[in-house]
Amino acid sequence: MEDVYSRARGVRVAIFDVDGVLTDGGLYYSDSGEETKVFDVRDGHGMKVLQSTGVELAIITSRKSGCVARRAGNLGIELLFQGVENKLETFVALAARLGLEPAQCAYMGDDWIDLPVLTRCGFAVSVPEAPAVVRSRVHYVTAAGGGRGAVREACELIMHAQGTFDARLAAFLA
Amino acid sequence: MEDVYSRARGVRVAIFDVDGVLTDGGLYYSDSGEETKVFDVRDGHGMKVLQSTGVELAIITSRKSGCVARRAGNLGIELLFQGVENKLETFVALAARLGLEPAQCAYMGDDWIDLPVLTRCGFAVSVPEAPAVVRSRVHYVTAAGGGRGAVREACELIMHAQGTFDARLAAFLA
Amino acid sequence: MEDVYSRARGVRVAIFDVDGVLTDGGLYYSDSGEETKVFDVRDGHGMKVLQSTGVELAIITSRKSGCVARRAGNLGIELLFQGVENKLETFVALAARLGLEPAQCAYMGDDWIDLPVLTRCGFAVSVPEAPAVVRSRVHYVTAAGGGRGAVREACELIMHAQGTFDARLAAFLA
Amino acid sequence: MEDVYSRARGVRVAIFDVDGVLTDGGLYYSDSGEETKVFDVRDGHGMKVLQSTGVELAIITSRKSGCVARRAGNLGIELLFQGVENKLETFVALAARLGLEPAQCAYMGDDWIDLPVLTRCGFAVSVPEAPAVVRSRVHYVTAAGGGRGAVREACELIMHAQGTFDARLAAFLA
Repeated sequence: MEDVYSRARGVRVAIFDVDGVLTDGGLYYSDSGEETKVFDVRDGHGMKVLQSTGVELAIITSRKSGCVARRAGNLGIELLFQGVENKLETFVALAARLGLEPAQCAYMGDDWIDLPVLTRCGFAVSVPEAPAVVRSRVHYVTAAGGGRGAVREACELIMHAQGTFDARLAAFLA
Repeated sequence: MEDVYSRARGVRVAIFDVDGVLTDGGLYYSDSGEETKVFDVRDGHGMKVLQSTGVELAIITSRKSGCVARRAGNLGIELLFQGVENKLETFVALAARLGLEPAQCAYMGDDWIDLPVLTRCGFAVSVPEAPAVVRSRVHYVTAAGGGRGAVREACELIMHAQGTFDARLAAFLA
Repeated sequence: MEDVYSRARGVRVAIFDVDGVLTDGGLYYSDSGEETKVFDVRDGHGMKVLQSTGVELAIITSRKSGCVARRAGNLGIELLFQGVENKLETFVALAARLGLEPAQCAYMGDDWIDLPVLTRCGFAVSVPEAPAVVRSRVHYVTAAGGGRGAVREACELIMHAQGTFDARLAAFLA
Repeated sequence: MEDVYSRARGVRVAIFDVDGVLTDGGLYYSDSGEETKVFDVRDGHGMKVLQSTGVELAIITSRKSGCVARRAGNLGIELLFQGVENKLETFVALAARLGLEPAQCAYMGDDWIDLPVLTRCGFAVSVPEAPAVVRSRVHYVTAAGGGRGAVREACELIMHAQGTFDARLAAFLA
């Protein structure tokens, strides 16, 4: 865990994939053509608290849907990239735009398409449901499942590593 | 458990958070902007039976949605407070309105935002999915998960502590 | 299990509660007022095969919703009783209408409201998620969860007890 | 596993049932008559990668719904057969149309209605939730559940057996 904390310490932006990470990977399709995704309320709280410590939040996803835009809006995430075919290109451009090195970027993904970013970012995180070839190539695999606290766990880990967790919690206990 | 029963014995109002407590924390977002929550039929039955013993029911939530109003209506809960930014203020005002001391109020919550109330109410309950910093600060953590019987378990515990469980059950067995 | 098989052998009608039995108890409420329930495809198949052996199927539920009517239609169940306040009355009337003794009726339920029927029918079945006071008063608790195969398990058990299982299966293997 | 790999090696078309295989068997019915199914994002990725290796994909289902057509469209599956009463007939016709022997066809199903095809195809796969009488008649039962990675597992197994897995993965790691 020493390496994990050391990597998490330098994170200035936390970037998330959507399906399988912010959700459990379920794609709800209705007969009338409506698509639904299930997000997690505690994941959202963790993201907002992390954001309040000065770490930027971003979302990069290869799919595209209105519900992701709505969730991002909810959480105050302006760095939203949907319908991305080449995640690595978007990742590199985003880091440049924020004036950050890859080592300062955390990325959380769960499938093969995430590997180019996971193998280049400073802190690569995945979920227990990800294929073994993905899990074996990241720095940290969460104990909680995707859409079931994995993102919350990653956010808290970054705050613990950066020493911001206790002060944030204290504000709620005041 | 002695302390738990002793605390549950004095409860005159049982107050519930929504997401993560009355639900498993899942936020269903559709592309057309519709939001859905999943409640539990057995939780609802437990709440209604507890209510029939004279314990008041209330809901305090920081989010706001039509489905919560509908569920509250279903269960005959008039003390519904949605879109609450400061839960402690609402809690204090509610206790005053009911003429109750904090010690007579049970509160069930699952995240940091619930801590100010959880650390002041007479009987603080949380769920197994709550963060450790929350679970370590309540009087009782349910065995059942949020949205999967946690509320039912809390309601039955209060009835057992108050000696009302057996008579209520007997009415169904008549 | 001897008593269980002996009871299942005499069953001429299998009556099911809805929420918690044909579903996992989840009540999906949308902001626009739409309610959704989740049924199980394998439960449905088990019900249809049991029906084909000459055992009648019926549904008795205290709630009322369009999706239950649709599911019943799907499965060819005409004996559908929704919005029932007194399940025992409906049960007694149904048995009389079918010319059956209570001993010839199986009933599957999961909560206190089901106890009056569960304690009087010939073969009482419940699910693992039911409260202990219910589980302790039935003849059989399924291994599979409500909405996750519990009904399928009960249907197959009845067919095994009645000696109709093997012939039905053989028809699919032909 | 030797027999399993040997069977998977010859597969030229992978045919999938829908409910219980591409989903966890949940049938979401709303009061307004809308039906929803939940697919898995990682299953979809596995199907697309398998397809890219030259193995055809097909869907055969006895039910009929718009959401399956949409999911098939998403995945570029043109061989979609819905509302099929006799799966064996459709299977035989499909194999003939593709100029394949049954031994070159994989079929993945989860219930009695799938048995005629499962007992005749070259590589029969089922899911852990399937009834024992189905599981005992197939060549391979996935570790992952239906709608929770079972299809992904089957697709990867075929690619491993055919020696196409490593090259495909390498393309994502480039």
